[in-house]
Amino acid sequence: MVKKVLLTLGALSLIFPAMAFAGAPSAGMLNMGLNTLWILLAGVLVLLMQGGFILLETGSTRMKNAGHVAGKTIFTMGLASLIYWAVGYGVAFGPNGNDFFGLGNFFFNPPIAAGETDGYATTAFFIFQLMFVTISLSIAWGGFAERAKLSSYLIFTIFFASVIYPVVARWIWGGGWLAQDGAQDYAGSTVVHLTGALVAFAATVLLKPRIGKYNKDGSANEILGHNQVFTALSVLLLWVGWFGFNAGSALSVGDGFFAYVAFNTQLGAAAGAVSALLISWAVMGKTDITTMLNGALAGLVAITASSAFVEPWAAVVIGFLAGILVFYSVKFFEKMKVDDPIYALSVHGAAGVWGTLANGFFATEELAAKVGVGQGGLFDTGSWYQLWVQFESVVVVGAFVLAASFLILGVMKMIMGFRVTEEQEIIGLDLSEHGNYGYPEQMKKAQQKLNA
Amino acid sequence: MVKKVLLTLGALSLIFPAMAFAGAPSAGMLNMGLNTLWILLAGVLVLLMQGGFILLETGSTRMKNAGHVAGKTIFTMGLASLIYWAVGYGVAFGPNGNDFFGLGNFFFNPPIAAGETDGYATTAFFIFQLMFVTISLSIAWGGFAERAKLSSYLIFTIFFASVIYPVVARWIWGGGWLAQDGAQDYAGSTVVHLTGALVAFAATVLLKPRIGKYNKDGSANEILGHNQVFTALSVLLLWVGWFGFNAGSALSVGDGFFAYVAFNTQLGAAAGAVSALLISWAVMGKTDITTMLNGALAGLVAITASSAFVEPWAAVVIGFLAGILVFYSVKFFEKMKVDDPIYALSVHGAAGVWGTLANGFFATEELAAKVGVGQGGLFDTGSWYQLWVQFESVVVVGAFVLAASFLILGVMKMIMGFRVTEEQEIIGLDLSEHGNYGYPEQMKKAQQKLNA
Amino acid sequence: MVKKVLLTLGALSLIFPAMAFAGAPSAGMLNMGLNTLWILLAGVLVLLMQGGFILLETGSTRMKNAGHVAGKTIFTMGLASLIYWAVGYGVAFGPNGNDFFGLGNFFFNPPIAAGETDGYATTAFFIFQLMFVTISLSIAWGGFAERAKLSSYLIFTIFFASVIYPVVARWIWGGGWLAQDGAQDYAGSTVVHLTGALVAFAATVLLKPRIGKYNKDGSANEILGHNQVFTALSVLLLWVGWFGFNAGSALSVGDGFFAYVAFNTQLGAAAGAVSALLISWAVMGKTDITTMLNGALAGLVAITASSAFVEPWAAVVIGFLAGILVFYSVKFFEKMKVDDPIYALSVHGAAGVWGTLANGFFATEELAAKVGVGQGGLFDTGSWYQLWVQFESVVVVGAFVLAASFLILGVMKMIMGFRVTEEQEIIGLDLSEHGNYGYPEQMKKAQQKLNA
Repeated sequence: MVKKVLLTLGALSLIFPAMAFAGAPSAGMLNMGLNTLWILLAGVLVLLMQGGFILLETGSTRMKNAGHVAGKTIFTMGLASLIYWAVGYGVAFGPNGNDFFGLGNFFFNPPIAAGETDGYATTAFFIFQLMFVTISLSIAWGGFAERAKLSSYLIFTIFFASVIYPVVARWIWGGGWLAQDGAQDYAGSTVVHLTGALVAFAATVLLKPRIGKYNKDGSANEILGHNQVFTALSVLLLWVGWFGFNAGSALSVGDGFFAYVAFNTQLGAAAGAVSALLISWAVMGKTDITTMLNGALAGLVAITASSAFVEPWAAVVIGFLAGILVFYSVKFFEKMKVDDPIYALSVHGAAGVWGTLANGFFATEELAAKVGVGQGGLFDTGSWYQLWVQFESVVVVGAFVLAASFLILGVMKMIMGFRVTEEQEIIGLDLSEHGNYGYPEQMKKAQQKLNA
Repeated sequence: MVKKVLLTLGALSLIFPAMAFAGAPSAGMLNMGLNTLWILLAGVLVLLMQGGFILLETGSTRMKNAGHVAGKTIFTMGLASLIYWAVGYGVAFGPNGNDFFGLGNFFFNPPIAAGETDGYATTAFFIFQLMFVTISLSIAWGGFAERAKLSSYLIFTIFFASVIYPVVARWIWGGGWLAQDGAQDYAGSTVVHLTGALVAFAATVLLKPRIGKYNKDGSANEILGHNQVFTALSVLLLWVGWFGFNAGSALSVGDGFFAYVAFNTQLGAAAGAVSALLISWAVMGKTDITTMLNGALAGLVAITASSAFVEPWAAVVIGFLAGILVFYSVKFFEKMKVDDPIYALSVHGAAGVWGTLANGFFATEELAAKVGVGQGGLFDTGSWYQLWVQFESVVVVGAFVLAASFLILGVMKMIMGFRVTEEQEIIGLDLSEHGNYGYPEQMKKAQQKLNA
Repeated sequence: MVKKVLLTLGALSLIFPAMAFAGAPSAGMLNMGLNTLWILLAGVLVLLMQGGFILLETGSTRMKNAGHVAGKTIFTMGLASLIYWAVGYGVAFGPNGNDFFGLGNFFFNPPIAAGETDGYATTAFFIFQLMFVTISLSIAWGGFAERAKLSSYLIFTIFFASVIYPVVARWIWGGGWLAQDGAQDYAGSTVVHLTGALVAFAATVLLKPRIGKYNKDGSANEILGHNQVFTALSVLLLWVGWFGFNAGSALSVGDGFFAYVAFNTQLGAAAGAVSALLISWAVMGKTDITTMLNGALAGLVAITASSAFVEPWAAVVIGFLAGILVFYSVKFFEKMKVDDPIYALSVHGAAGVWGTLANGFFATEELAAKVGVGQGGLFDTGSWYQLWVQFESVVVVGAFVLAASFLILGVMKMIMGFRVTEEQEIIGLDLSEHGNYGYPEQMKKAQQKLNA
């Protein structure tokens, strides 16, 4: 009898090897489920970052534009989701196509469920990737702020979510030509942040500075945002979401390596906040709140590419240098008469470039092998190869995004106009584009003056 | 030899059934733990939606009521938690009782831990269900806004969390009579959203419109909310939390199907945001921020019932139509002189009905079988049966909630009064109900005027 | 052939018994991954609580200090992260050292990944512990609010994150001498909340009350915060994050006990919100929004120590009494002329003491055994022992934190000054410490008046 039970159990354990009782899933299924849960939750955390962008962008701009700035984030997120579902996902990750442009999976109709040999459910992967598109887009809006027409947001979203972003993603994350060169961009210092920042650059150049930003003698005026509680809270929400952004990019729970990525992320962000405060104190004698906040974000942006490839001390160095870089970068763009209300070019552009290049210096052979992308950097291996690859990916992605953005936005500017009228800009986009103030009670007096 | 291996395996599987080493849990335990983690986190995401409601309701109303509106959400959430724990949970899911009203598990005292044959820990299930009650309640408060007495919030919470909501949950989710008919309401377009909206309807009818909403000639004035940054951020927080709301309703990680539900949720929300913008642009020539935001929410509400029962293309259609529906619904209720400050009747009521009925059209046989509730809808099967069941559940739930709400609120109105005095309403509920403004510095001048 | 397959499968299933196919992780690895995922996500939830503190502290203070108050949270979080990484973590959890002070793991360089016999990845554990430090620090800032110099925040952060907090953590959570006595503080009513509150007490005593808080005759003026939407939303965010704070302290998914902890947490918070409202209504005839919100927070603080040690009914009692306690505590400190703008002494101090002592009354033998710390309390066992241990840990932690805080802050006060000048305090810390208003558009008029 005992023998018989043991035989049956033994046979059962061959058929359902991971089951303690009939009905429990196999280890493969549990692994797939665990990974899928993490990827979905990471996607949700990235979605929460949009709350950060809503607050960052409104807090950094003026009250007369607040409803417009906040509301357009929701709408463009919706539109980008549909476009990416219909087209962009196939361009980035489609099974057909080539190293430059993917094809297939348009109007993505995923399997209902996954099997025990799958790493994760593709539905979760899609959601995670989609959230990255919308983040990159929200970075791009920094260059549109306070002067672009609502219609230009809509038209540009279509091009961005169907082609610009997906092509870059294909090259680096979709097995494309930069991936084959070994480009290391773990969670998108280049793919997400630099791409968004360069769109913002093209937009701000084509739109020209806001009324009142520069004087006739070329000197700059400070156009203060209206709410630093919003901007500080925005940084917190972005920081929270970044754990999904970076550590979720592991796409697996596995041996806990995703938490190592999170660990480096925290150190990079912290170092950026500290160094930006120190440099502004040293140089200006005062600590500007905005500079501190930009430092934390720059640390996060810089550690995004490298969080899986470097050791903790290097994460601190990368974040620390990013905080200093962003301080000088803001000054540089202001001097260059590039009006960048949300500091997208410095926080996401300059720090995005630095973060990507940092792999070329700090990546270790061990971690590159662990992730399975590229090689160790200069300091670990003495080889310049990885630095060259990182440089290459910044340059070619930069060239592509700038060319595509200037082309599309330039044509839009010619055909439909890109900027609101001077009168509309002065009364604010809440009234001119949507018919009501975002803060009606507080703005009523301003309105009464305008009517008088 | 085979025998020997099998015997050894069998013996091992008795001692360490799913273990790679002594101390590791069985596959059943891991499965239970994974599900429990997801259900708890989904509950936490739904709790975060209350942050959305705080911002939605305050943003859509006036500064003089802001502290009251925000604070009462926290308080009623606390009270509803105690009442549901003591009574409501037993009414909804109690092991005794009947198809209409449950009994048992009052003052719920759950087991400390779960076993390997459990699907999840009941403590997590309780938390998840409780969060739904409080969401439905926050929807209901839309009809109370800016004119109900604080005491009426407290009294009504007791009835709502002990009887009204739990009875509906019993019918559809607790194995009750509508469940037995095969009613499909995956995450509560009816149970949560329609229930809340119908309470709001009863309240707004009994309270009558706010002072100044309608002129003597019957024309309506727009009473603008005071902060569209809050309303836009509220939609983002609701969107974030909705992934817990819908995908958490799978109550299992299993084969990754919960991510399919999340995938449909994202598409429905996106389509709602896009269609609302397009319709308002087409009809009004301008895009109202509020309309856009309502569209995204209507998409989310509509896909709530159907997210597990339809294919992605149908999720897009359902969300798209919800965005258009909400635009006309808002106009309809305004015309009907129903003063609905937070658009609860349109966003949660009209879209909740549409979402529930949509299953009757778009549910597929395959997905209905997968979920194990009801049948395929008209388009997949040619059968009208599921549409009839969906219609039935809308009608009977609607009739019950309306009757109960009018009865309870009507009696409250007679006995203790429901609406603040005209003077209190004019100075605002922050001062009249709580003794201080919610925005003291900004409101000081208004106060000085009133005192003069 | 069949034999051969069975033999191979049998052999494989002996080596990797939990695998359904080659490549799937073992049950031990899945368990480690599941725990690591929960700990990391719990850490992220605790990080979100900083958003709560940003809103709580700014909402409870005046507009002229809003940017400063919000921004310094981000900065001190960054600095504390680096200091704790370099020093504090080793003091709290270092493998060497003694029962009072740990040594080792400075500049923590964790393993890249974890193995199947680990409970979790130490990187996730580090992140979780780090977030607790920053929460305790944000509580401490309550005593600094609206009058401390920015530099004093920076210097004190260094001492707090390297020594004060880590020493307390060592004693209770790091296997130190109070742990050996069986002190029960599941998620830190003492370690996190009381520690922070006592720093706030030392700071507020050394700083003296804000200008205008007390009249010459000793009577107190109410200095109202500026935004109750912020404070209500802050409570919601704190409530959300507290599920990570308490239930994450299980450090394991295991048999689902973490959800039991979450269940008690919800009941404690709910009871605190309800009782605070009832007592304020009973005593004052009106319900103050701030009192309600403090009640919910006090319920959360009190249930923090006991959430794993008591039954649900006791969680309700503990939270309920906390809500009443906080109401009288606020009145007491006001009478004592202790100016406590954020109510840190009452919400985190008084409720923290109560929560810690509550274990001595309500802990059950069964749950103490389950957690493996201490014994059952007075009501379950009739023994006074656990109450004595709880009392001891409050007293010795209190004495240590007070002594260290008065020493460090006192020396800082002598050497570098602690409080801004009277003029700076009047114009506000946004202008005086950072050069710009946090709300420039709304504060412009105030500025114009000051300049005139």
